[in-house]
Amino acid sequence: MREPEVVALDGDTIPDGLVEAALSYERALAEDDVALLDAFFVDGPAAVRTDADGVLTGHGAIARFRRLRGGAPARLLLRLEVVVLSPESAVTIATTSASGRSAALTQVWRRTPDGWRIAVAHVGAPASALDERVWRVAGAPLLPAASPGALDGMTVAVKDVFAVAGQRLGGGVPAFLAGRDPETANATAVQQLLDRGASVRGVAVTDEFAYSLTGVNPHHPPTPNVLHRGHLPGGSSSGPAAAVALGEAMVGLATDTAGSIRVPASYQGLWGLRTTHGAVDTSGMLPLAPSFDTAGWLARDGETLLRVAESVLGASTTASAAGLVTLEDLRLTDPVAAAFDAALDRLGPVRRVAYPLDELAAAFRTVQAAEAWRSHGAWILAHPGSLSADVAGRFAAAQLVTADDESAARAALDGHALRLRELLGDDVLVLPSTPTTPPPLDIAPASLDAVRAATTRLTSIAGALRAPAVSAPLLGPRGAAGGLCLVGSRGDDVQLVARMLDLATELTTEPRS
Amino acid sequence: MREPEVVALDGDTIPDGLVEAALSYERALAEDDVALLDAFFVDGPAAVRTDADGVLTGHGAIARFRRLRGGAPARLLLRLEVVVLSPESAVTIATTSASGRSAALTQVWRRTPDGWRIAVAHVGAPASALDERVWRVAGAPLLPAASPGALDGMTVAVKDVFAVAGQRLGGGVPAFLAGRDPETANATAVQQLLDRGASVRGVAVTDEFAYSLTGVNPHHPPTPNVLHRGHLPGGSSSGPAAAVALGEAMVGLATDTAGSIRVPASYQGLWGLRTTHGAVDTSGMLPLAPSFDTAGWLARDGETLLRVAESVLGASTTASAAGLVTLEDLRLTDPVAAAFDAALDRLGPVRRVAYPLDELAAAFRTVQAAEAWRSHGAWILAHPGSLSADVAGRFAAAQLVTADDESAARAALDGHALRLRELLGDDVLVLPSTPTTPPPLDIAPASLDAVRAATTRLTSIAGALRAPAVSAPLLGPRGAAGGLCLVGSRGDDVQLVARMLDLATELTTEPRS
Repeated sequence: MREPEVVALDGDTIPDGLVEAALSYERALAEDDVALLDAFFVDGPAAVRTDADGVLTGHGAIARFRRLRGGAPARLLLRLEVVVLSPESAVTIATTSASGRSAALTQVWRRTPDGWRIAVAHVGAPASALDERVWRVAGAPLLPAASPGALDGMTVAVKDVFAVAGQRLGGGVPAFLAGRDPETANATAVQQLLDRGASVRGVAVTDEFAYSLTGVNPHHPPTPNVLHRGHLPGGSSSGPAAAVALGEAMVGLATDTAGSIRVPASYQGLWGLRTTHGAVDTSGMLPLAPSFDTAGWLARDGETLLRVAESVLGASTTASAAGLVTLEDLRLTDPVAAAFDAALDRLGPVRRVAYPLDELAAAFRTVQAAEAWRSHGAWILAHPGSLSADVAGRFAAAQLVTADDESAARAALDGHALRLRELLGDDVLVLPSTPTTPPPLDIAPASLDAVRAATTRLTSIAGALRAPAVSAPLLGPRGAAGGLCLVGSRGDDVQLVARMLDLATELTTEPRS
Repeated sequence: MREPEVVALDGDTIPDGLVEAALSYERALAEDDVALLDAFFVDGPAAVRTDADGVLTGHGAIARFRRLRGGAPARLLLRLEVVVLSPESAVTIATTSASGRSAALTQVWRRTPDGWRIAVAHVGAPASALDERVWRVAGAPLLPAASPGALDGMTVAVKDVFAVAGQRLGGGVPAFLAGRDPETANATAVQQLLDRGASVRGVAVTDEFAYSLTGVNPHHPPTPNVLHRGHLPGGSSSGPAAAVALGEAMVGLATDTAGSIRVPASYQGLWGLRTTHGAVDTSGMLPLAPSFDTAGWLARDGETLLRVAESVLGASTTASAAGLVTLEDLRLTDPVAAAFDAALDRLGPVRRVAYPLDELAAAFRTVQAAEAWRSHGAWILAHPGSLSADVAGRFAAAQLVTADDESAARAALDGHALRLRELLGDDVLVLPSTPTTPPPLDIAPASLDAVRAATTRLTSIAGALRAPAVSAPLLGPRGAAGGLCLVGSRGDDVQLVARMLDLATELTTEPRS
């Protein structure tokens, strides 16, 4: 390793062993020697590591981050500045370089009986043209507003399944993107926002062909979950959701076939609306399963979501006054179960009905799979090896759905929709948006499959009913236990968002004792 | 001010006055109370402030930065975590929020007789979709390579004066951009790079209509100078230069009419080539003064620049073996003068000739102004108030150039070109790229005018000769005293870059004693 230039800023003598410790740390980082890196941080709760994704406190949290990261990018230590605080503590400020990009690293060291240890580290990110965890293309803006309107000043992250004029459509699949020509017109859902005063900030990442709920796509750097660091961001609208959560856009324009808006909203503490099927024209939108595909929006707060929904759908904002109903046997895991029970207690009388959700969800999945294969099967067969294992496996299973399977499932699903609608009547269905909090990034594949099945068991209800569903971060503090979901009647989208805003007020007002 | 959540991570008692000091600092920041902010940092050389632009050391450097910044964006302090190192020192880690974007701030505090003072601060940047100091649009990539070639894997920052298919052309002027339709084809200079394996990373910022050498454009956040923090980045190719300097692109595709490649290269420690006038087709390039407009490239090293030039221009890479010649009375300021003299001493015999550069430069500026007004005058008259004062003033002066002025100046310039070419013969002219190092950001307008005049006095030589000119960061350590410039004969572009690589070797090899 090349020796860096070392400078003691106050002219003090640098304490014995400090520079050697800093260099050893760099070597351990280069070798991704996780055990040694762990040992370099002070033990216990008073260890801190901060980077662009936020603050990690405690030795355990830092060690877990390091295990999940799987190695740091190679970097060269150019310069090390030292501020001595006492014989027992000092600060090093390192300037590093990686692929021509420089960055800075501040470390606060304490002398322990075992040698110098890091108490606090602040890792600066190198300069980056684009936040590729979130965006495939971005501009300042990428597309300006087409005219002034109700959405003046709003910036939009467009999921990479909508046509954006001048850009190629990617669908989260680089090989698919590579074969596309630039779009000559905007998708209707994009143009609607531009026509109302919003501008397009950029094209945001998505799971491959939107056929996943994890938000993990190996074709771009990992999309973060700001609310639950080290956990899945949720998908398939991972990019628009993270853009909104990070404050890089105000609105996410996304799609929801089987939960692709509600799941990332629930995992990341956002508001999200899956619209009534057919309420937003899908021209210029890449299909997944057209019987269920809907466009919708994500926002940080309910007022913004309401403004967008009202502006595009043009309906009344009178809150729905319908009764509330929920279902038995939702199979929630804690902390969702406890938070949902607590929410129901606060919401007053909620009717409870039983429904065979397993049957409904199975029928939904079969029809979804058949349609997904119809949408993308030919391309997938012509481009082997273009998808990651998880999504490729789902399409492979979809290919096996026969015409008889599909028509039987479709008939079953139509029956479920009728029966369930009758049971619900005019009441609004209240559910958790997801039955679990976001799984950790290192969840085992089998466990992830179980989470997916449990999740679509809830999210397929709105799909089957072709009904609107709104998710709001009302379970647990700041939505840490996930989203509360309202499923309404077809066409009641705006009233449903307004109703959720009312519920948010009820749930966050201190109860009278 | 809302009180943040305060947490002592190790359960220790937080030393008296520390939290109050941290809150006072936030108030001073909100009020941009520069004197109080200055007082909060420990005096002397052992104060450090690090942010995304790098490390500032010493109380004076930090105070200067703060004066130039002119206020920090408003932020809310959400959470303050404290690590106590001793009764005399502690670290605070703050989580802040601004416009929905969160960021982290680490501060190392020392107790002094006057109270708690900051010894070291590391300011994290909030998440950002796009580095708007440098880019107007970026993608991953924005445009892929059209075919494999010699430039495989290279990423290009395209100055916003070249047509990029699907994007509107901006020319650094938002009102101009707003009136454009998306381009349907790439400029030739863009397509040349795509055809040879490079991809376009994005559209990089430029001075307004490229009619400036400062790199200051009030229509986007300030473009940094990585080599000389707090100083002008140089322009008009400020964006492509900074993209390369920051490692956000490998190659900058830029233009040079009167120094727009050479000046930012010299100020930012980069290699840059202004090509022979006419050597790169200007189709799809926004004109400034067509008699002098050239396309060219910027890179971090000479090998990359050579590879691009050779690949596009298709010429031999044999280094020019011509003799070297320089001019008397270059009117350089230190440290450029001293560094240039030292370089000449190392380069062996360099012939010196006298030439009336003031006359040449005056004629150049008149023709440039007349052509600039012809290029943009009609638009400027139709869109009053669209340009910043500096560039608007230059165009206003250009409007006053009469047809007689222009033809007289053109005749004079042609005469100068003939006389100077004869004086130079086949020798290569060696000059500093700029007569000064980059002026500080707070330079007085009159001083800046003087710098501009002194600079174009040198840069207009290549313009008058329609000749290639290469700039390399060879004056002072890491080019801190600016670029060395070679002006060659028309068509000798590639040989000139190769010759500069030879000179770089000569100048950086230790002299034999």
